[in-house]
Amino acid sequence: MTLRRSRTALFSLALVAGFSVAPHYQSDHWSTATAQAAEEKIGPKVTSFFLANGMQVVVIPDHRAPVVTHMVWYRAGSADEPPGKSGIAHYLEHLMFKGTKTTANGEFSSRVAAIGGQENAFTSTDYTGYFQRITPDVLAEMMALEADRMENLVLTDELIIPERDVVQEERNARTENNPGSLLREAMVAALYQNHPYGIPIIGWQHEVNSLNKDDAIAFYDKFYTPNNAILVVAGDVELDVVKDLAEKTYGKVARRAEPGKRMRPSEPPPRAARRVEMEDARVRTPSFQRLYLVPSYNTAEDGEAEAFEILGELLGGGSTSRLYKSLVIDQKIATSGGSWYQGGSLDDTIFGFYGAPGQDTTLADVEAAIDKEIAKLLASGVTEKEVERTKNRLIKQAVFSQDSQSTLARIYGGSLSLGATIEDIESWPKRIRAVTPEAVNAVARKYLKKKRSVTGYLSPEKKQG
Amino acid sequence: MTLRRSRTALFSLALVAGFSVAPHYQSDHWSTATAQAAEEKIGPKVTSFFLANGMQVVVIPDHRAPVVTHMVWYRAGSADEPPGKSGIAHYLEHLMFKGTKTTANGEFSSRVAAIGGQENAFTSTDYTGYFQRITPDVLAEMMALEADRMENLVLTDELIIPERDVVQEERNARTENNPGSLLREAMVAALYQNHPYGIPIIGWQHEVNSLNKDDAIAFYDKFYTPNNAILVVAGDVELDVVKDLAEKTYGKVARRAEPGKRMRPSEPPPRAARRVEMEDARVRTPSFQRLYLVPSYNTAEDGEAEAFEILGELLGGGSTSRLYKSLVIDQKIATSGGSWYQGGSLDDTIFGFYGAPGQDTTLADVEAAIDKEIAKLLASGVTEKEVERTKNRLIKQAVFSQDSQSTLARIYGGSLSLGATIEDIESWPKRIRAVTPEAVNAVARKYLKKKRSVTGYLSPEKKQG
Repeated sequence: MTLRRSRTALFSLALVAGFSVAPHYQSDHWSTATAQAAEEKIGPKVTSFFLANGMQVVVIPDHRAPVVTHMVWYRAGSADEPPGKSGIAHYLEHLMFKGTKTTANGEFSSRVAAIGGQENAFTSTDYTGYFQRITPDVLAEMMALEADRMENLVLTDELIIPERDVVQEERNARTENNPGSLLREAMVAALYQNHPYGIPIIGWQHEVNSLNKDDAIAFYDKFYTPNNAILVVAGDVELDVVKDLAEKTYGKVARRAEPGKRMRPSEPPPRAARRVEMEDARVRTPSFQRLYLVPSYNTAEDGEAEAFEILGELLGGGSTSRLYKSLVIDQKIATSGGSWYQGGSLDDTIFGFYGAPGQDTTLADVEAAIDKEIAKLLASGVTEKEVERTKNRLIKQAVFSQDSQSTLARIYGGSLSLGATIEDIESWPKRIRAVTPEAVNAVARKYLKKKRSVTGYLSPEKKQG
Repeated sequence: MTLRRSRTALFSLALVAGFSVAPHYQSDHWSTATAQAAEEKIGPKVTSFFLANGMQVVVIPDHRAPVVTHMVWYRAGSADEPPGKSGIAHYLEHLMFKGTKTTANGEFSSRVAAIGGQENAFTSTDYTGYFQRITPDVLAEMMALEADRMENLVLTDELIIPERDVVQEERNARTENNPGSLLREAMVAALYQNHPYGIPIIGWQHEVNSLNKDDAIAFYDKFYTPNNAILVVAGDVELDVVKDLAEKTYGKVARRAEPGKRMRPSEPPPRAARRVEMEDARVRTPSFQRLYLVPSYNTAEDGEAEAFEILGELLGGGSTSRLYKSLVIDQKIATSGGSWYQGGSLDDTIFGFYGAPGQDTTLADVEAAIDKEIAKLLASGVTEKEVERTKNRLIKQAVFSQDSQSTLARIYGGSLSLGATIEDIESWPKRIRAVTPEAVNAVARKYLKKKRSVTGYLSPEKKQG
């Protein structure tokens, strides 16, 4: 059960095709590609419909091989947790494998394995997803199993308390033993002054320690209702078959709640630049990060998110980017350097910079060099040529990403979970093509302000004052 | 209706007797004295009892003049607000003057004025209070009026929407037009990563904008119930009279809710030093602040809060303190400098430092000088003599503060709202006397760690990157 510590970048492609060579701030961030059927004419015909109980179903045909990707997405993530219950979304994701009225603890996974399937699950700030890769002949059984745990989960203290230790071990491995993750937690907590995105997806350790059955059941009953779920089936299967099977399985699950529109506390206008400085004995190479609070695809004005997508790539996506060329190749101030935009989130999100000093340079040198590139950008802007090149690169990555059935399924599930429509996804290349250099300059000038930012330094331990 | 932007320092005395000459970080912070009857033998005999509906009553005799201080405290403040509803505690405090089933809008205040009373109200993170200074002959009427609005508040949109503008104007005057307050908001938001103390008492402006009648009534119904209230009557009145009047007024108010134990999301262990840098065109003199997350009287282990009380005073309370002598008098690096402990809060609180550079020095100079004093403290500790002198000073201030009837009433009301007992308040001088230099050194070494801190710089505006 993979925890997704970062939010899905709704339409960002940088990492999907293995493009990004520079170490990325959020290494497990899975940016997702889009179907750009409209422009590149290679995308599959995606169909979406709703069951009577409100569950959305998306079917993505792919007949290249006898494989099906089956996913259920819930529109609920860590940012939907009640105060003081951080980690419950992710803990519940683990508990979904603990058995139902008719299946035993672990039986879900053993049956998936028995039918030759592969499975995983993930929790983000805005959604929780469960997926399996199976052969088409067992889709009916797979859907019955997944629909069963949507309404029949049975939790007992005997089963779930040990799983809390598993979750804590996961936190230890990913966060407590990883200074970079600890710094990221502290930076994100400093960036978000009011919004729950400031709370880590896996939860604060001390709060996870006291999560219990009632907390899990309350979250399950509130959010794991079919009208809050999206089924995505991609692969070697016909629409009619999926429709029929979905009605016979998920269609039988009663609505248990009306989660309604998701309203989280929003951010006040940022007033002051913040810095987070962490020293840790386990750090070998220092690293620099800068996060800016910026709009997401869901909160941006028209075209702003697309402009950020281009800005992130142009400025810092890979070894041909401005930052890499300037800091790493030309000036040799840094051994890595880049920028990224995490556009896929329900609420305001992050535009980030990163860099690591070399043997003879410091974090302050890297910061100054990045600030100089930002100042240059704000003063002189981007060129038509750079923007065109970046558009081509982004769209090419989207084409590549279509090759992966599970990536496509993730794109659709993630985007729809965040309120996008099929049309939004399909029109992405067109919207990227429409971005002008002026639009890129405008978002940079509007949002890359120090007072909207948190700067982070991670250093080997020195003596503390 | 005064907004208390800072929490009451439960037993801290530094400001009560007008002692502190240096500009204080939180200028409207009203630190409160304690009754130290046990030691100094001058305190009044304070009585406390409960009405049948669970309301606590505290009577503090003071027969020097025909004056009575009448206060009602609710154990509910901004940290008890639901997510996204910041400011509702303070907004409700304003709305409590809007009329009841039997009184018109503004009638409460006009009747208090008609009986020759003075009144005010205040909201903190942990409590909300209403008080009047009256003559003894009108106490019955005063109690009837206050008891009436405990259960009979009537709100209409016509009356309350304009009051929201009043609250916003208050925020404009206190915060938006005050760069120091904006910096404080940002620093406190950065200090608290999970706990609602990170949210300003007056509320985030954008959230206050959408508060409505339902939000106010929900908060009122949940918290303004007699079993969540404390009545404090100080002054020229006999216990039996208060008891009789309280039973006839507040005693008739039915319990409407069971707020139970207050459980707020708590802080994760701090991992990284944070900095907040604000530039603002309105700033004339730069200023430096440092906040450390430390235990309060309510969360500290035995004796730690008392040790912090001494540390704050010894290090930075006024012109005889270490910091003032070193930074202002000897080195002439700063024009002000000091430290403070805000011990009175339900959950973990703040130990703070402040300083302002002179004509020829910078914020970095002030910070370095304060850091040097902290390093010296951690390395060499405090002396027996300094600690004794500080104890005497603190206890003397407590004696002075007893002279004010309303201060005494505030001490009792505030402390009891935060979970203290009468005995806790009365034993404070004894507990201060018991603090050893080792205990002071121990809390300094345990808590004055950079990773527990937020450092703030407020500067005149320069060009932003």
